Amino acid sequence: MTDLVTFGETMALFAARRTGPLRFARDFDLGLGGAESNVAIGVARLGHAVRWIGRVGADEFGDLIRSTLAGEGVDVRALPDEAATGLMIKGRRTADHIDVTYYRQGSAGSRLTPADLDPELIRDARVLHLTAITPALSASCRESVRHAVTVARAAGVTVSLDINYRRALWPPDEAGAWLREMIGQVDVLFATEAEGRLITAAGPGPVGGGTEPAELARALGAFGPRHVLVKLGSQGAIEWSGGRLLRAEPYQVTEVDPVGAGDGFAAGWLADWLAGATPERRLETACAAGAFAVTSQGDWESLPRRDDLRLLGRDGDGVSR
Amino acid sequence: MTDLVTFGETMALFAARRTGPLRFARDFDLGLGGAESNVAIGVARLGHAVRWIGRVGADEFGDLIRSTLAGEGVDVRALPDEAATGLMIKGRRTADHIDVTYYRQGSAGSRLTPADLDPELIRDARVLHLTAITPALSASCRESVRHAVTVARAAGVTVSLDINYRRALWPPDEAGAWLREMIGQVDVLFATEAEGRLITAAGPGPVGGGTEPAELARALGAFGPRHVLVKLGSQGAIEWSGGRLLRAEPYQVTEVDPVGAGDGFAAGWLADWLAGATPERRLETACAAGAFAVTSQGDWESLPRRDDLRLLGRDGDGVSR
Amino acid sequence: MTDLVTFGETMALFAARRTGPLRFARDFDLGLGGAESNVAIGVARLGHAVRWIGRVGADEFGDLIRSTLAGEGVDVRALPDEAATGLMIKGRRTADHIDVTYYRQGSAGSRLTPADLDPELIRDARVLHLTAITPALSASCRESVRHAVTVARAAGVTVSLDINYRRALWPPDEAGAWLREMIGQVDVLFATEAEGRLITAAGPGPVGGGTEPAELARALGAFGPRHVLVKLGSQGAIEWSGGRLLRAEPYQVTEVDPVGAGDGFAAGWLADWLAGATPERRLETACAAGAFAVTSQGDWESLPRRDDLRLLGRDGDGVSR
Amino acid sequence: MTDLVTFGETMALFAARRTGPLRFARDFDLGLGGAESNVAIGVARLGHAVRWIGRVGADEFGDLIRSTLAGEGVDVRALPDEAATGLMIKGRRTADHIDVTYYRQGSAGSRLTPADLDPELIRDARVLHLTAITPALSASCRESVRHAVTVARAAGVTVSLDINYRRALWPPDEAGAWLREMIGQVDVLFATEAEGRLITAAGPGPVGGGTEPAELARALGAFGPRHVLVKLGSQGAIEWSGGRLLRAEPYQVTEVDPVGAGDGFAAGWLADWLAGATPERRLETACAAGAFAVTSQGDWESLPRRDDLRLLGRDGDGVSR
Amino acid sequence: MTDLVTFGETMALFAARRTGPLRFARDFDLGLGGAESNVAIGVARLGHAVRWIGRVGADEFGDLIRSTLAGEGVDVRALPDEAATGLMIKGRRTADHIDVTYYRQGSAGSRLTPADLDPELIRDARVLHLTAITPALSASCRESVRHAVTVARAAGVTVSLDINYRRALWPPDEAGAWLREMIGQVDVLFATEAEGRLITAAGPGPVGGGTEPAELARALGAFGPRHVLVKLGSQGAIEWSGGRLLRAEPYQVTEVDPVGAGDGFAAGWLADWLAGATPERRLETACAAGAFAVTSQGDWESLPRRDDLRLLGRDGDGVSR
Amino acid sequence: MTDLVTFGETMALFAARRTGPLRFARDFDLGLGGAESNVAIGVARLGHAVRWIGRVGADEFGDLIRSTLAGEGVDVRALPDEAATGLMIKGRRTADHIDVTYYRQGSAGSRLTPADLDPELIRDARVLHLTAITPALSASCRESVRHAVTVARAAGVTVSLDINYRRALWPPDEAGAWLREMIGQVDVLFATEAEGRLITAAGPGPVGGGTEPAELARALGAFGPRHVLVKLGSQGAIEWSGGRLLRAEPYQVTEVDPVGAGDGFAAGWLADWLAGATPERRLETACAAGAFAVTSQGDWESLPRRDDLRLLGRDGDGVSR
Repeated sequence: MTDLVTFGETMALFAARRTGPLRFARDFDLGLGGAESNVAIGVARLGHAVRWIGRVGADEFGDLIRSTLAGEGVDVRALPDEAATGLMIKGRRTADHIDVTYYRQGSAGSRLTPADLDPELIRDARVLHLTAITPALSASCRESVRHAVTVARAAGVTVSLDINYRRALWPPDEAGAWLREMIGQVDVLFATEAEGRLITAAGPGPVGGGTEPAELARALGAFGPRHVLVKLGSQGAIEWSGGRLLRAEPYQVTEVDPVGAGDGFAAGWLADWLAGATPERRLETACAAGAFAVTSQGDWESLPRRDDLRLLGRDGDGVSR
Repeated sequence: MTDLVTFGETMALFAARRTGPLRFARDFDLGLGGAESNVAIGVARLGHAVRWIGRVGADEFGDLIRSTLAGEGVDVRALPDEAATGLMIKGRRTADHIDVTYYRQGSAGSRLTPADLDPELIRDARVLHLTAITPALSASCRESVRHAVTVARAAGVTVSLDINYRRALWPPDEAGAWLREMIGQVDVLFATEAEGRLITAAGPGPVGGGTEPAELARALGAFGPRHVLVKLGSQGAIEWSGGRLLRAEPYQVTEVDPVGAGDGFAAGWLADWLAGATPERRLETACAAGAFAVTSQGDWESLPRRDDLRLLGRDGDGVSR
Repeated sequence: MTDLVTFGETMALFAARRTGPLRFARDFDLGLGGAESNVAIGVARLGHAVRWIGRVGADEFGDLIRSTLAGEGVDVRALPDEAATGLMIKGRRTADHIDVTYYRQGSAGSRLTPADLDPELIRDARVLHLTAITPALSASCRESVRHAVTVARAAGVTVSLDINYRRALWPPDEAGAWLREMIGQVDVLFATEAEGRLITAAGPGPVGGGTEPAELARALGAFGPRHVLVKLGSQGAIEWSGGRLLRAEPYQVTEVDPVGAGDGFAAGWLADWLAGATPERRLETACAAGAFAVTSQGDWESLPRRDDLRLLGRDGDGVSR
Repeated sequence: MTDLVTFGETMALFAARRTGPLRFARDFDLGLGGAESNVAIGVARLGHAVRWIGRVGADEFGDLIRSTLAGEGVDVRALPDEAATGLMIKGRRTADHIDVTYYRQGSAGSRLTPADLDPELIRDARVLHLTAITPALSASCRESVRHAVTVARAAGVTVSLDINYRRALWPPDEAGAWLREMIGQVDVLFATEAEGRLITAAGPGPVGGGTEPAELARALGAFGPRHVLVKLGSQGAIEWSGGRLLRAEPYQVTEVDPVGAGDGFAAGWLADWLAGATPERRLETACAAGAFAVTSQGDWESLPRRDDLRLLGRDGDGVSR
Repeated sequence: MTDLVTFGETMALFAARRTGPLRFARDFDLGLGGAESNVAIGVARLGHAVRWIGRVGADEFGDLIRSTLAGEGVDVRALPDEAATGLMIKGRRTADHIDVTYYRQGSAGSRLTPADLDPELIRDARVLHLTAITPALSASCRESVRHAVTVARAAGVTVSLDINYRRALWPPDEAGAWLREMIGQVDVLFATEAEGRLITAAGPGPVGGGTEPAELARALGAFGPRHVLVKLGSQGAIEWSGGRLLRAEPYQVTEVDPVGAGDGFAAGWLADWLAGATPERRLETACAAGAFAVTSQGDWESLPRRDDLRLLGRDGDGVSR
Repeated sequence: MTDLVTFGETMALFAARRTGPLRFARDFDLGLGGAESNVAIGVARLGHAVRWIGRVGADEFGDLIRSTLAGEGVDVRALPDEAATGLMIKGRRTADHIDVTYYRQGSAGSRLTPADLDPELIRDARVLHLTAITPALSASCRESVRHAVTVARAAGVTVSLDINYRRALWPPDEAGAWLREMIGQVDVLFATEAEGRLITAAGPGPVGGGTEPAELARALGAFGPRHVLVKLGSQGAIEWSGGRLLRAEPYQVTEVDPVGAGDGFAAGWLADWLAGATPERRLETACAAGAFAVTSQGDWESLPRRDDLRLLGRDGDGVSR
């Protein structure tokens, strides 16, 4: 039995070492990233059995993805594809602004099809975790998401969706339409405020989504999800679950790289949901894992293990020896 | 027709990669810098035709200067000289204190003469931009400045001067005397508070330069300049133009390297002056360009293009994708 | 008047810093490369006026291409395109084996069309330099080559073609067919032995292309070109021109990066052809420029200027001071 | 069923980036290495199921070992130990001389005990691969080797031993005595000439080990092993198997780092033995895999996969694209 | 005559270049560190004659320690030992949390014996400076401390002790017991609040150590020391000397690496005590030197010289030129 | 008593990390070098007491020189000067050609005067070692050399001179004239063939200097020196001493950086002369130390200690562990 199954596109990632226009960056690190595999790693580090499915090219970047995820303890189903593995280029225009560029059109990862998703692998899991990046990649990817959700719901597997809206992939109205179509089948929804409004703005909902985050959470919940998580950045996060509203303060950490915060948040929440933690503890862990994600370079490298969680908050001079 | 012409010394720049005493730095980047060429790049990026004139050695550093400025779209007149290109060494003694050391005595750049400045190139421009670094380099450089100003004023070209006081090159009283001699022929004056007081402290002026920045600006304006810009660091900047005082708040950005802020400010102001922007907009652009300059390593690499200006201020998590 | 005009695709280039499987390389340099722009830089460094035309994305990589070529003194016509600038990834599987991977499908550079090639820019030049990479990129690129050759021949502009066969872009038989179709309109042909045989193997030629390089050169010449250059790697090179066969020994240099040797060779030959050098000298310069290309990392950075040519061959301990 | 099982100590590895006395090296890479895990990775890359057993500290270095081996497709049994993971420091005193220093006394890896070696894991394999490093680490490690060999022989599992003599761990006579005690139970023996003479020098053998490598191989074979492989460095290698002598020439490759050549050789031989290749092919693959090991930095990163083997020997200019 | 003599263990130090779990750090700097030699360097930079005594391995790390300390003007007595020089690994789990791991069990430095401490070298000094790291290293080290203190007190040499509690080396109760035994013979005591409570918590003292830092300082003073310095991190520091309490505010600096702050504080205080400065000035210098220590990477590299002290506090844009 | 005293200019050294035109190098290491201090370090490492005298700036580079030489065990007399420390920039145009550029005009080191050379420090030594770089730096430097030689000869101190001709500092005829003037007072002369001919070409000598190295050595000896060492690069070296000619073969090592080979040679010879080794051994040690100098980056870092000398020549796979 797997605790969580997820699928999507994971890409090689070239990250500039310095701040400034990308053309002056000159030195780059090679790594990898993908919202779903970031979550997979995060949940695995917090102690659960996780499976990731995706297509990768028959190239070194595909091998990098396969070996890294396997090394992180994720059960990797990296299906070989004749197209090349997609790329991300990550630059830092200023110390406060990161740009991510994609080379993923026609990539291996975007060629996933429903047939790649063995229904048994979905039925075997307690949670199916998705993002709204996948449907924006290709028609077959969109179909794959629909197929997976159908299988999951039929088998009683909890469906989790993190919106992860990517403007570079599809326009807001197309994303909003897809999300409204899908939200009724989702059990757990992760969204930033702006992402949540993609749904409420797309038309009248069961109840209106006001300007307050709490109203938004309630409005999104009225579409169906049992748990709605709204991430508020420097304001922390709120959760609306079964009519109850929880609020968590953010952790104060020195931010090194904001990318991956949302994936860490989802991983923390899902790990604690799988572990049966209390709602309060679960939301706390989500915030903590999100905070960890930003404390070092890389989208997922810094995600915490259970015994790392105590490191948030500085103790003495912040040196252990 | 050129929008702006400038001249001065541009040097190769070895910048230490780490904070701490320079002798422990060990790793250095090679780049280049010079107050006037920094402004030239900044104005070019904001959409204007710019020309830079200077002497460089017949060496790799001279080539670096020539190819970099040309690559930035500046019309480079890099006159070859038998002396070597000057050097700057930039270290960071602490995270809050940068040291710049020069190897520029007798350098190619300091051997510029009035004969190097073809009057047609000056008359062809709308603005002649100068700094008070050049007169401190050599007698022929000082003479070159005088010559250029004479040509410009005769042709009705606007004269801009950024004081850029360098203690390593000349003592305050010598600088002050030169500035008082020159200020009457300057149309646009850029100064920090301390730099402005070099002028007012050098003797009685048309009106007294009090302790308030606004008084200082007014006092400097009374010497002749139509526009006086006083940069106040973390307090923003003020402009005194034709009897009117404007004030701008600074942008909140994470500072990576403070060098170049003043050059960015001048570039922003001059670009908007050339573009005919309102005084308010012009001062705003000056502050924005100055803020950009400090957001990455290097003296000029981070200067903005028009479409970068919107990036100031953090939007969401500061990640575009 | 331009001495040489060329066009094609130039890409951003991520080059691994270490030898070994790419997934372990981790550190990459950002640069750029493209066979035609490499030749453009090489010819410009040897003293001629050169123009390069191509499409680049409205992105940092496009800017990198524009500023670097301009900085090298090339007259750049980098047409902005809505597609992204293409990428190359360069790895070193072993110290003796380099792998280049492309992300250029649908790239800006591959979207060049005949309309992008202002006939005046071609007629204005003494040489039009092409590679057989461009026709392999897209139908519009193939059409652009045909168009340019037509314009050039009509205007009496010398047509130069370096085969530069890329297996990743098209199969040998397709390349061979295209080359046989084109060769009759080419004045100067550059080829390795294997590349030359793409043509002779495609069917019976005017005279048979035997197993000896000299026979091959003669056979290729019989298709039309006035000058046929066959590069023999560690055996040097031969030239067949107007019935006369010349042979040059290779220079003994320590190879750092083999990529770019052919582009350097073409640049050296064309520069000396433009300068009216003797055939012997011309072939010598071609070999020298090719040797320089391999003496440092990067595809073009190490290309020589006239006064560098004396550095081949080690004098004393190889230290100048 | 596992094809090969091995155990031993794997350590974190700090490798200096520059040649020269270690105290001037300043920049180090973190990696990992261990003769047995190097072989495990090599055999896995060549297509077989491999298991590695060892103790690692409950620290980041232990995690690095666990994740890297898992990422390479090795079935890792990394038993947590309260002692710290051992370290290697690898310096390059000159371009031709590498120094490896150990911090492994009392390390996690040296605390392996027979109880850590579940007999089922050994019986499940076709080959048990050992090195003579393990018995030099501690009494419990020496006992572990003895125990494993006993289990293997009782179950008919082929026993392979690569001598890997380490002067820093034990003196030659102690090593020789242990090897003579063990050699009768070994089926496949890997040795350099000097290592082979540790055995023959330790006392009279079944037949004398003369000065010729072939005589030495025969002499070692007379102690019991069915296959004796003597590695001759720049002279290639010889194999004595069942009375037959094979000889293989070395591959000509540019050496980047000699460490790991022997492990690559063993991996190549064992992989082809497992695959049932001919003796000639097997020895060839051993030489090829050994050659690959030296073509990049790191002890194992460059080991080949089946489709890499064709890359030995340079084809054209050594660039694939 | 030496102003200050100290002894202890100095180790080679591998410091990760990036934030995040150590196993992802990959790039490390080699340096060195040791609380006592850090203080020795700090006092030497502030103008005093300093001697350091310790054992180092006959290896490159030992040479690094010897040459670095000698280069810093410290009179080094680095006794060669057959064991290897100890190591520290310094990682940064998050931007706010540093981990230091030791490989020092049985190291050269831990094998110091009383016989290594020539009584003349101690009697020749005005101050003997110790840390409570040394007694935690080995029995012979603990004996060495006792011996040195006995010699110092007999000769009227002032004894200084910085607690520097290291949890990795001994448990709090053992440390507390040792400290209570020793404190009566100490003239100057440096402690953080937590370290001070190791002593007061170990049993009833002459007067109770309350919850306030001032009370703690007084309580510690009642055990014997003439000067008690309690470091309060972001709250500055207090000094209790002869019944008088001084308090100093911390300097506001951008922290780059917190390690070494305490050593810098001790060095500043001791240097000014040696120089006969006023108590107020002395405490100020201690805070300044501690602030400097954190402004760059490395445990000691950034320690100030007299003329650096003016750099604290940002002047203008923080650029000198 | 000092074994060897030397003086001259030592500079900070920026060395490019990559091969290619310097303007593309971008990454530089900071180090230091100077022919005399290189020899001083080399002789000190081989076991002798060495003193170096020179002027350095009151800047970080001066401190770097002082601390590095002191750290190497050289008795440093680095006199502070108000001018800045000189710089060297070291680039590698191709893998086979190094360029060294100086920024040393008017530098601290060039301002040495006879008064800086306390006669007692010269009389106290067994050898005074000089290079013909110093007289080319300034009039006062030239006077300093003359002064030192006078003092040395009067006191019976052996005078050693390594020509070290630098074309960037003076023309061959000026150097030749100075050398002919000086050679009669020199006991030990080190020269390359080209350097030796500066002397013989300057006019008729006691005996003609033919085209053979042996003849040249004899001819140089006829001017006065008791020992003439002619370095022949890849042909090894010859020594003419008291009518006897010795010849030594070069060591075969992989060259990393040719700079410093001559300084290593001189250091090896002088160290063995001081140690009273046989002429054969002395010349052998000279060649070995010269070989070591080229095995790593940096001018002096790789110079050998006595126990390193055995590492020349590769033993087994060149790995010690």
